[in-house]
Amino acid sequence: MANEKKLVEAITSMDVDFAQWYTDVVKKAELCDYASVKGCMVIKPAGYAIWENIQKELDKRFKESGVENVYMPMFIPEGLLQKEKDHVEGFAPEVAWVTHGGLEELQERMCVRPTSETLFCDFYAKDIQSYRDLPRLYNQWCSVVRWEKTTRPFLRSREFLWQEGHTAHATAQEAQERTIQMLNVYADFCEEVLAIPVIRGQKTDKEKFAGAEATYTIESLMHDGKALQSGTSHNFGDGFARAFEIQYAAKDNSLQYVHQTSWGMSTRIIGAIIMVHGDDNGLVLPPVIAPTQIVIVPIQQKKEGVLDKAYELRQVLSGFRVKVDDSDKSPGWKFSESEMRGIPVRVEIGPRDIENGQAVLVRRDTHEKITVGLGELAERAGELLGQIQKDMLERARAHRDAHTYVAEDFDGFVKTVNEKPGFVKAMWCGCLECEEKIKEVTGATSRCIPFEQEQISGNCVCCGKPATKMVYWGRAY
Amino acid sequence: MANEKKLVEAITSMDVDFAQWYTDVVKKAELCDYASVKGCMVIKPAGYAIWENIQKELDKRFKESGVENVYMPMFIPEGLLQKEKDHVEGFAPEVAWVTHGGLEELQERMCVRPTSETLFCDFYAKDIQSYRDLPRLYNQWCSVVRWEKTTRPFLRSREFLWQEGHTAHATAQEAQERTIQMLNVYADFCEEVLAIPVIRGQKTDKEKFAGAEATYTIESLMHDGKALQSGTSHNFGDGFARAFEIQYAAKDNSLQYVHQTSWGMSTRIIGAIIMVHGDDNGLVLPPVIAPTQIVIVPIQQKKEGVLDKAYELRQVLSGFRVKVDDSDKSPGWKFSESEMRGIPVRVEIGPRDIENGQAVLVRRDTHEKITVGLGELAERAGELLGQIQKDMLERARAHRDAHTYVAEDFDGFVKTVNEKPGFVKAMWCGCLECEEKIKEVTGATSRCIPFEQEQISGNCVCCGKPATKMVYWGRAY
Repeated sequence: MANEKKLVEAITSMDVDFAQWYTDVVKKAELCDYASVKGCMVIKPAGYAIWENIQKELDKRFKESGVENVYMPMFIPEGLLQKEKDHVEGFAPEVAWVTHGGLEELQERMCVRPTSETLFCDFYAKDIQSYRDLPRLYNQWCSVVRWEKTTRPFLRSREFLWQEGHTAHATAQEAQERTIQMLNVYADFCEEVLAIPVIRGQKTDKEKFAGAEATYTIESLMHDGKALQSGTSHNFGDGFARAFEIQYAAKDNSLQYVHQTSWGMSTRIIGAIIMVHGDDNGLVLPPVIAPTQIVIVPIQQKKEGVLDKAYELRQVLSGFRVKVDDSDKSPGWKFSESEMRGIPVRVEIGPRDIENGQAVLVRRDTHEKITVGLGELAERAGELLGQIQKDMLERARAHRDAHTYVAEDFDGFVKTVNEKPGFVKAMWCGCLECEEKIKEVTGATSRCIPFEQEQISGNCVCCGKPATKMVYWGRAY
Repeated sequence: MANEKKLVEAITSMDVDFAQWYTDVVKKAELCDYASVKGCMVIKPAGYAIWENIQKELDKRFKESGVENVYMPMFIPEGLLQKEKDHVEGFAPEVAWVTHGGLEELQERMCVRPTSETLFCDFYAKDIQSYRDLPRLYNQWCSVVRWEKTTRPFLRSREFLWQEGHTAHATAQEAQERTIQMLNVYADFCEEVLAIPVIRGQKTDKEKFAGAEATYTIESLMHDGKALQSGTSHNFGDGFARAFEIQYAAKDNSLQYVHQTSWGMSTRIIGAIIMVHGDDNGLVLPPVIAPTQIVIVPIQQKKEGVLDKAYELRQVLSGFRVKVDDSDKSPGWKFSESEMRGIPVRVEIGPRDIENGQAVLVRRDTHEKITVGLGELAERAGELLGQIQKDMLERARAHRDAHTYVAEDFDGFVKTVNEKPGFVKAMWCGCLECEEKIKEVTGATSRCIPFEQEQISGNCVCCGKPATKMVYWGRAY
């Protein structure tokens, strides 16, 4: 019992200090650790295994939509970064610069990619000649570097892992369709795989990506009521194509600029999994993404037949990602540890269970215990995993909906943001001044102009002028 | 016919100029391209798909041996790189240095990892406390940077993709066993998956990894008779552990240093696939690694029923990685293109074939044509892919054996190296002077001291003194 207590006590309660709770879970569930390199992290096996499952699921969806993977260099010569004006302004202040190769100073310094639009454009300018070469639907899995001042594991670090898709199309319409298509891939992935409900919408001009014509986003709500931008998809129009001279010969032999998109999702989403689903016992992983879906904990494992039965059940459950915890720790410690690590289902099997031809299934999300006959174990475990996945999405959706508010005037808006952490839906006139004032006064930013619009009132929540756009606002990570 | 000619003429014959043939294949098979960033490459979809299959197969074998994946930062602070003396001497002259983060100069410059021993050691020093924490069997997939002066696609570039495994063990024996285990994983992978036969052995002290106690290697022979180091596995003993103070409390509570290994394989191996199996028609891919294993080429595809039949056969062959080439190019062009890309089996299906209830299978490796009844297509195609895989390994082995020579004295050695490209087996006394003289006079380096020793003579091929070690020598990439 001492052990169990120790493990649980190691986590701060999320209601006491959410930020500390987050850091504790990251550390105690052994997801990642700080590196000696300032602002960078070491992703440990338990964290990386989640990322591998994310990669597998996302990559499959990308390929089904016709996307191919490639790999571009990690360095961008300074001259290349500068080719698109808005883009360089957005990124130059936060890149890492390489100035020396071996013992020699470089003639032109290079940055480590903060994102690879310029590299893809440079490549496409040579690679695309004719309409027959279009569309180009490329993606790469890599790490990128942004020289952030304050960092937090997964949420903001100087180096992080991600994928970045970069496509080139013959027409503006095709580019727009691809932009939305990939946003929907992200949204469906979040909901179906990560059990995280998202709001789909467009970023305001202030919040859009440096160099983009339009940025679309999926926004999710963490347990503490703060928002997290969970994936973005950008339509560049022909802006980059003009800066980089990416032209193709159309069917009528005229030279045309391509239209481009880019879209990305990063290890940041692991932060969302933690903060949407976690509880005071640690991580809670959705079954579809969990590296281990079922852990079998033998009770009184030294008694004859118990361990053998545990291994037998592992065989019975081999259709799932299953492990037996046959370490020499106490069952109580094993329970706590499997909860800390967020394993969706625990199977307890002891001498009395064996005698009765049964086992106990324990849900990580609700702690519910279910006794099942051994003959139906695999079937019931499969059903349970499906049910947990479904319930986790519904619970997260209910939490988000319960923390989504409406504000009709500025006083109400300020009061809501200050007193009720969550999304605030409010009308906006579309001007930068109101957006900046809201941020200054409340710390809330425009999260997105959702595709699903509602008419809350006829006037901007800030200036009172006529407004047609409903916006989701919130404090964000 | 003009088209077909054009595509084939685009490649230099390998007998005329092997280096140019290699560059032509890389380009025409669309595996990779030079980037604007000097010395770096863009890996295109056809090349990256090969790498993805390599990753999948290798990663599976790693995990089966208990290895877990992690991710370390890409930057190494200069002070960290300098902790192990031999290591920094080996790598410092060829690293890229980051000196600025954003607008500020860094207090300590950092290099982009050329390899990550120092980062893993820094992490292990904190992460490992007790014998219970051992062994640590970690691996990462990432890119590394080495500031090479002359570069060639896949074979030598300033940035390349690889995996690097880093393990820590309680005992020297366990570390040595893991070093050899991983070398054998690489060797089996090369032979079973890539159909590339390899010589397994140990590097001489001169050729071993900077900081290692012993380096083991697998060496393969390219079609032009030059050797390629195809994977390495290092035993560090406790050298890095002492430099980084990686200690654990043993069962008897004494403090002990861990023993470490590292092992890596890179995109360089794609160069080996090209140079071992390719021919004057382009790439020849072993079926197990080929992104597309079977291409179906409809003949007279505008005739009613031909395309439908092609799609039907795709369905029949859906157990394989199969594509239909239904583009508007001529069949001859499609044949050439599928050969250039190295697709192992081509299925030709035209109106007469349909009438006769048959199709023609064409082997990429031998150009043999086999007519098969449609009812047995899937079965025969599967057998054929297996046969091709087997034949490719045997052919490569026969080529290597036919280009492996024996030298008993120095004159014979020099003559063989100069006149007969290939491996030369010869005795060596073990001294650095002889190794350096051989390199200076012939350009051949010691490739490895093979595990399978033969007693060719009693004396060193260079100095004539008594010798007990038989070494493989050769000019190398």
